[in-house]
Amino acid sequence: MVSAAWACRGSDSVYEGAIQDLIDELGRLPGVGPKSAQRIAFHILSTDPADVNRLATALRKVKELVRFCTTCFNVAESEQCRICRDPRRTNEVLCVVEEPKDIVAIERTGEFRGRYHVLGGAINPLEGIGPDNLRIRELLARLGTGEVKELILATDPNTEGEATATYLALMVKPMGVAVSRLASGLPVGGDLEYADEITLGRAFEGRRAV
Amino acid sequence: MVSAAWACRGSDSVYEGAIQDLIDELGRLPGVGPKSAQRIAFHILSTDPADVNRLATALRKVKELVRFCTTCFNVAESEQCRICRDPRRTNEVLCVVEEPKDIVAIERTGEFRGRYHVLGGAINPLEGIGPDNLRIRELLARLGTGEVKELILATDPNTEGEATATYLALMVKPMGVAVSRLASGLPVGGDLEYADEITLGRAFEGRRAV
Repeated sequence: MVSAAWACRGSDSVYEGAIQDLIDELGRLPGVGPKSAQRIAFHILSTDPADVNRLATALRKVKELVRFCTTCFNVAESEQCRICRDPRRTNEVLCVVEEPKDIVAIERTGEFRGRYHVLGGAINPLEGIGPDNLRIRELLARLGTGEVKELILATDPNTEGEATATYLALMVKPMGVAVSRLASGLPVGGDLEYADEITLGRAFEGRRAV
Repeated sequence: MVSAAWACRGSDSVYEGAIQDLIDELGRLPGVGPKSAQRIAFHILSTDPADVNRLATALRKVKELVRFCTTCFNVAESEQCRICRDPRRTNEVLCVVEEPKDIVAIERTGEFRGRYHVLGGAINPLEGIGPDNLRIRELLARLGTGEVKELILATDPNTEGEATATYLALMVKPMGVAVSRLASGLPVGGDLEYADEITLGRAFEGRRAV
């Protein structure tokens, strides 16, 4: 054994400039740990430059072009989002969600043809998010025109989402708008045995005559 | 209920141009599924433009600047990588690895002060990777100079890595170079109970007098 080959050294970063920079930048993204960042960086290294350019351009374009719809606060590339601009949708039903990605989930069902309102989160006192931090004032302004007949509260079925829905129901009911909440119960395709007790309790509460 | 609000519609993509483009591009990265792509895209949307620019620049820079070391095939930003350029390291011990990221793992131990040789993979007949697809010719050329006294085979401890190590040992031994293989055995901090039978078998085989 050649002893000169073994010696204790510091833990300085091993990659040189550009690749280490990319690993660092990728590691800042949500859900990307150091291992994935390294894996993605090496993938980039062996990818066609045109593909990498497309990704870099897409990143810059999003910051340049995408803003929030002035009506519903969904993501949009113009004053209003695609859903608010769509003349085939009814203004009579308004669905309140926490984030733009919730709109995607609902649109995927293909069942809803009304408009949306994105709150930008849910009431969460522990994180200092109160009603004033959400777009509730804007929601009440939209309801003020009298066009909306039903408000569907589609906030998440967790503590914060429920609290937000309860708060909104209290605010909106006096305005004469029908208010509903998405049903809680067993997920379709699920297994009764594995349902948690709260979901199962809700499923009993909300049981329907057949 | 306002029936006009419900109607069946196609599953066209819900986001507009730029954000959907970014989700698509991110989804092409290894280990990034559609959900993570969406999550990262929305994170980008609410990130400081300067940070996003840094990521876009880092992506482009990697393609512009990073190439492979002409000596050991590690990633490098000049003719030779940092390790090959380091005059404090010995040329007498050469460690053979599959990929540049294996170098990082070994460097992190701070125990090795020799040089490396990156094969660019391992022998894998099922995927059509034979000895000619790896940088074995280049390795033999480096050994031909007579400077290297010991070759450490640090390919992965799996079927392909073992096959590659066996192949290399057969090729190199006649050249009068000492050849060794990294020890297999129980991982430090591990639990004997959870060790698989092959690892445990190796640990018995390689037992050391105390």
